[in-house]
Amino acid sequence: MIPAGGVGTRLWPLSRASAPKFLHDLTGSGSTLIRATYDRLVPLAGQRIMVVTGRAHRRAVLNQLNEIQDENLVLEPEPRDSAAAIGLAAAILYRRNPEIIMGSFAADQVIGPVEVFQEAVREAIHTAATGKIVTIGIHPTHPSTGFGYIQTGLPLDVPGAPSARAVGQFVEKPDADTARQYLASGFLWNAGMFVAPVSLMLKHLEANEPALHAGLMRIAEAWDTDRREEVMAQVWPDLPKTAIDYAVAEPAAAAGDVAVIPGVFNWDDVGDFAAIGRLNKASEETGVIVLGDKARVYSDNASGVVYGDIPRVVALIGIDDVIVVDTADALLVTTKEHAQQVKTTVEMLKRDGETDVL
Amino acid sequence: MIPAGGVGTRLWPLSRASAPKFLHDLTGSGSTLIRATYDRLVPLAGQRIMVVTGRAHRRAVLNQLNEIQDENLVLEPEPRDSAAAIGLAAAILYRRNPEIIMGSFAADQVIGPVEVFQEAVREAIHTAATGKIVTIGIHPTHPSTGFGYIQTGLPLDVPGAPSARAVGQFVEKPDADTARQYLASGFLWNAGMFVAPVSLMLKHLEANEPALHAGLMRIAEAWDTDRREEVMAQVWPDLPKTAIDYAVAEPAAAAGDVAVIPGVFNWDDVGDFAAIGRLNKASEETGVIVLGDKARVYSDNASGVVYGDIPRVVALIGIDDVIVVDTADALLVTTKEHAQQVKTTVEMLKRDGETDVL
Repeated sequence: MIPAGGVGTRLWPLSRASAPKFLHDLTGSGSTLIRATYDRLVPLAGQRIMVVTGRAHRRAVLNQLNEIQDENLVLEPEPRDSAAAIGLAAAILYRRNPEIIMGSFAADQVIGPVEVFQEAVREAIHTAATGKIVTIGIHPTHPSTGFGYIQTGLPLDVPGAPSARAVGQFVEKPDADTARQYLASGFLWNAGMFVAPVSLMLKHLEANEPALHAGLMRIAEAWDTDRREEVMAQVWPDLPKTAIDYAVAEPAAAAGDVAVIPGVFNWDDVGDFAAIGRLNKASEETGVIVLGDKARVYSDNASGVVYGDIPRVVALIGIDDVIVVDTADALLVTTKEHAQQVKTTVEMLKRDGETDVL
Repeated sequence: MIPAGGVGTRLWPLSRASAPKFLHDLTGSGSTLIRATYDRLVPLAGQRIMVVTGRAHRRAVLNQLNEIQDENLVLEPEPRDSAAAIGLAAAILYRRNPEIIMGSFAADQVIGPVEVFQEAVREAIHTAATGKIVTIGIHPTHPSTGFGYIQTGLPLDVPGAPSARAVGQFVEKPDADTARQYLASGFLWNAGMFVAPVSLMLKHLEANEPALHAGLMRIAEAWDTDRREEVMAQVWPDLPKTAIDYAVAEPAAAAGDVAVIPGVFNWDDVGDFAAIGRLNKASEETGVIVLGDKARVYSDNASGVVYGDIPRVVALIGIDDVIVVDTADALLVTTKEHAQQVKTTVEMLKRDGETDVL
């Protein structure tokens, strides 16, 4: 299953409520992030891929994934956090077959090489089959304070999963000093990627969030019937809002039910425009990374990233590591160094009622 | 007379062929530069003000100066440099009254305080009445390599013009070392501002550019008749192209016919976006200078200039002395330090056939 939520605030005004991060091609690959995510999973799951997204994105997601079956497109009337989104997928799949092993892979991450990723998922499936919730951890490239971490434990002896290990615990986003200690101790980034038997997911969900579990089971019961819409509309709005980490992953880890496969592939959650600088090659002619095919970029002694949504000339002169995001109703000019601060500006805009551009 | 020509290339894309510098309010005064120039002259000349501009700007100039008389709006079918533009004004005025003293004041300069300027012009008129071409020189504020200079001579004893001096010579734009020497020697900037008897102007023009003089006299003869258009169309396209400096000012100076009034007012030719930074006050809320009332500017730890031609949000984050010029078909992002380099980009655009945006 692919949870496709999250606006990607730090990528405003490119990414916004009406066109979140997963609907953009941020790597110049020719594929949007959600399409690339789907394509990465097809060799593992065939067409048995479910997408959970906001109702507002139905048309855009179908444009990207025209092969998806109606019953595998879960449309949230409103966002109710990750436990509801992932839990509903687990519940629906459980109703179809209680033996199913599910995987959850966010729609807006960049991963490669694909074969290395797929091998990690295969190991995770073998490990999940032994009765574990198996997270795929990411080898940190720097002591980031923007991710949660996973403390790994002893190797597990799982046939077909030579790199499987126990999980000590999940830890929250650390401060810089703690992050450095985590790196030194071999902790992995928690990218929210996991593979697990749906029955085990639901067991922990029921234990920790019984009301949420009950609501999701009611929707799941109606899902593959003509009462889907009706029950969804009735139950969804009152579901408790909580993260899957709190509702399942952390208590399951405490119970010794979680394993980890260390992912040795490249991974980027494209968290800000600096990431877009890392993930794309600058044009040899202009020295600038250009996303989108509409802007005609001219540069003189400049470098950075230009995203151009509207067909016009964009001229950059004497400015390094600049970020220019040119959309019909909003223009952002910043530098790679300040890419994280975009969030603060989005908050200013929200405060000032500039909701049209968010 | 007000020569209103010159695109103001270094102010692209704000200033461009279809909307040159003089049609913009670049000081936040609420007046375009040409309107402010006109208003500055009314106390001196009343309605006896002539404007010479390109035919393409007829409507825009009339919008700005709706009081101007048809016979005082000279529309050039195509630009033929300053000697033709200013010489034609001189010739037309001479036909009306050979005793007229004219003044020439470019449409795209910023001057203040107005009273100090007007006092300088009054001194220039008194001096011109003694049979001189009188330039108003500008006290240099720095050793600019972007202006020509005027070497001043001995004081002249002109009643009503206590600061009048002889002119030694006009000199071309210097290199940086020479500019420093000029400043040390009390040279003034040549701002192309002068007051002179039209008869004396035409005498020097005839001596130096007889073909140009003859052509202009033919147009002037027809000007206040119904043959104006016809003769203009016939004669103008073949007029020699040359600058008034070469055709009149320099040879007149060599002949001892030029005087200078040192202007003690503030003067700026708004040559680039750095000038706009000097001439405007930053908003206290954003720390940014905003020109135009359409952009809704949000800034976080940023400073500089934003010109917004289109109604949208412009967000600046963590970037100092930035210049953002946001027009419908072209966007410029640079810094004050690189303001002069805009010209190079305009040349690139010309080379690439991007004439629509120039």
